[in-house]
Amino acid sequence: MNITLAQAEKLVAAAKEKATAIDTKMNIAVVDAGANLVAFVRMDGAWLGSLDISIKKAKTARFFDMNTGIVGELSQPGGSLYNIEHSNGGLITFPGGIPVKNADGEIIGAIGVSGSSVENDHAVAGAGASAL
Amino acid sequence: MNITLAQAEKLVAAAKEKATAIDTKMNIAVVDAGANLVAFVRMDGAWLGSLDISIKKAKTARFFDMNTGIVGELSQPGGSLYNIEHSNGGLITFPGGIPVKNADGEIIGAIGVSGSSVENDHAVAGAGASAL
Amino acid sequence: MNITLAQAEKLVAAAKEKATAIDTKMNIAVVDAGANLVAFVRMDGAWLGSLDISIKKAKTARFFDMNTGIVGELSQPGGSLYNIEHSNGGLITFPGGIPVKNADGEIIGAIGVSGSSVENDHAVAGAGASAL
Amino acid sequence: MNITLAQAEKLVAAAKEKATAIDTKMNIAVVDAGANLVAFVRMDGAWLGSLDISIKKAKTARFFDMNTGIVGELSQPGGSLYNIEHSNGGLITFPGGIPVKNADGEIIGAIGVSGSSVENDHAVAGAGASAL
Repeated sequence: MNITLAQAEKLVAAAKEKATAIDTKMNIAVVDAGANLVAFVRMDGAWLGSLDISIKKAKTARFFDMNTGIVGELSQPGGSLYNIEHSNGGLITFPGGIPVKNADGEIIGAIGVSGSSVENDHAVAGAGASAL
Repeated sequence: MNITLAQAEKLVAAAKEKATAIDTKMNIAVVDAGANLVAFVRMDGAWLGSLDISIKKAKTARFFDMNTGIVGELSQPGGSLYNIEHSNGGLITFPGGIPVKNADGEIIGAIGVSGSSVENDHAVAGAGASAL
Repeated sequence: MNITLAQAEKLVAAAKEKATAIDTKMNIAVVDAGANLVAFVRMDGAWLGSLDISIKKAKTARFFDMNTGIVGELSQPGGSLYNIEHSNGGLITFPGGIPVKNADGEIIGAIGVSGSSVENDHAVAGAGASAL
Repeated sequence: MNITLAQAEKLVAAAKEKATAIDTKMNIAVVDAGANLVAFVRMDGAWLGSLDISIKKAKTARFFDMNTGIVGELSQPGGSLYNIEHSNGGLITFPGGIPVKNADGEIIGAIGVSGSSVENDHAVAGAGASAL
C-alpha cells in the first residue's frame, strides 16, 4: 500500500488551509511508503531553511514510523538514540513529521511541515495527516 | 521578481495535464529565482529515479537561464563545457528543464520534468512554462 | 528585493574595518535573498576553518531570517530545535550571522562572520549589516 | 609564499574591470596556495550556477598548477586523465581557471572565472592573474 498523488495533494491542501488559518507560512512535504517525495509546496514568504527541514521531517517520520518528536526525545544527550540525526543523510527529530495511515491503519507515507514553532508545525502536519 | 506558489501550482497543473494527455507519468519540479524548490509532484507510477532528475533539471535551467538541453549540447566530449555536470552538486543537462518568465520577460524561476523520453519531458516542461 | 554586489561590498568593507579596529582576523561572507554567495573575503592569517563557518552563518541567518545565535539557543539539548544543524547541508547556529535589510525593512540577504570569539564575530557582522 | 587578501582584491578588481569592458557578468573567485578561498564576488545578474563553477575552476587550477583548460584536454574520453572531474569533490576542467604567480614566478594561488563563454571566462581570469 502506497499513498497516491491524489491523496498527497489532499494532505497538502488540508495542511495549507490549516497553515493559513493560524497565520503561518509553511513548507509542506509528503513522502510515500518508500520515503520518497511525492508532493511539496513552499508557501510565499516561508523560511528558505525550512524547505529541507520539512522534507527531512517527512522522511524521518516514515523511516521509523513514528512522529518525529518521539525520535527527538530519544536522541538527546544520554538518550538511547543519541545523535541518530547523523544517519540517513541527516534526520530532523523535532515535531512536525507524522506518519500517514490509510483506512486500514497501514502506514502509506508521511507528512513533514516546517516554518513556524514546532507546535504550529505539528498542528499543521496533523491537519494534513488526518485529511484522508 | 520571484515566482509565487500560486504561479508554480498553475505550472504544475498544466504540466500534469500535458503529461496525462500524452500518456506519460512524470516528476514535475518548480524552483524560484534563487533556484530553491517551490512545488513538486510525482505522478503515480513515475520513475523513482526521475524525482532527483526533475529537481536538478529545474535548478540547472535557472542556474544558467537556458533550457537544459542547450547546456547538454555544450557539455559533450570535446565541447566547451565538457563535464560541467560535476558542479553545483550535480547538474542534469539533457532536455526537460526550462526557465520560466513573467509577462515582462524576466526570469522568475524554472520548471524541470523527468519520467519519459527527453522529447516528452521537454514537451511537458514547455506546457508548464507557458502556462503563466 | 535582492542585495546588489555594490551593497555587499559596502558590507564587507565595513566589517573588515571593524575587524581591524578590534584586532581580529575574520572570514566575511555575504549571501543574497536566495541564500547564494555574493561576496567573500578571508583576511590574512584568519582561521582556515572559519571560511566554511562564515558562509554557513550567512546562509543560516537568511534561511530563518534571524540572527544565528537565536537559532542556537533553540537547538540546545532539550530545546525545541535540537540538532537542526543537520539540515540544509549543515547549519552554524552560534552568533556571527545576521540578516541584512534594505531601507524599507525587507530582508535582502545576510552576512556571516567567523574568526574570533562569537562576541567579536557578532560585533563584526553587526558592523557590516548596519553599513547600508 | 601565499597570496594576500590585498593581492586577491587587486585580482578581483582587475577581473571585474575586464568583465565590464567586454560586457559580461562574472563570478570571480581567488584561492590561495592551499586552494582555499580568499576572495569572491558575483556581479549583479551573473549566472547562479557559475558561482560554484568559478570556485571549482580556481581550485582546479591550483590543484594541478596549470590552466583548467589544459586539464580538460587530458580528461576527454580516451585521454590520460579521463573523468578526473570526479575527484576532489568535483573539478571543472574547461577554461577560466589560471594559477597566479608572484614576481619570482612562484605559484601563490589561482583565479577562477565563470559567467560567459569559456573564451571570455579565460580572458577575464587572465586579466586578473596578470594584475599583480
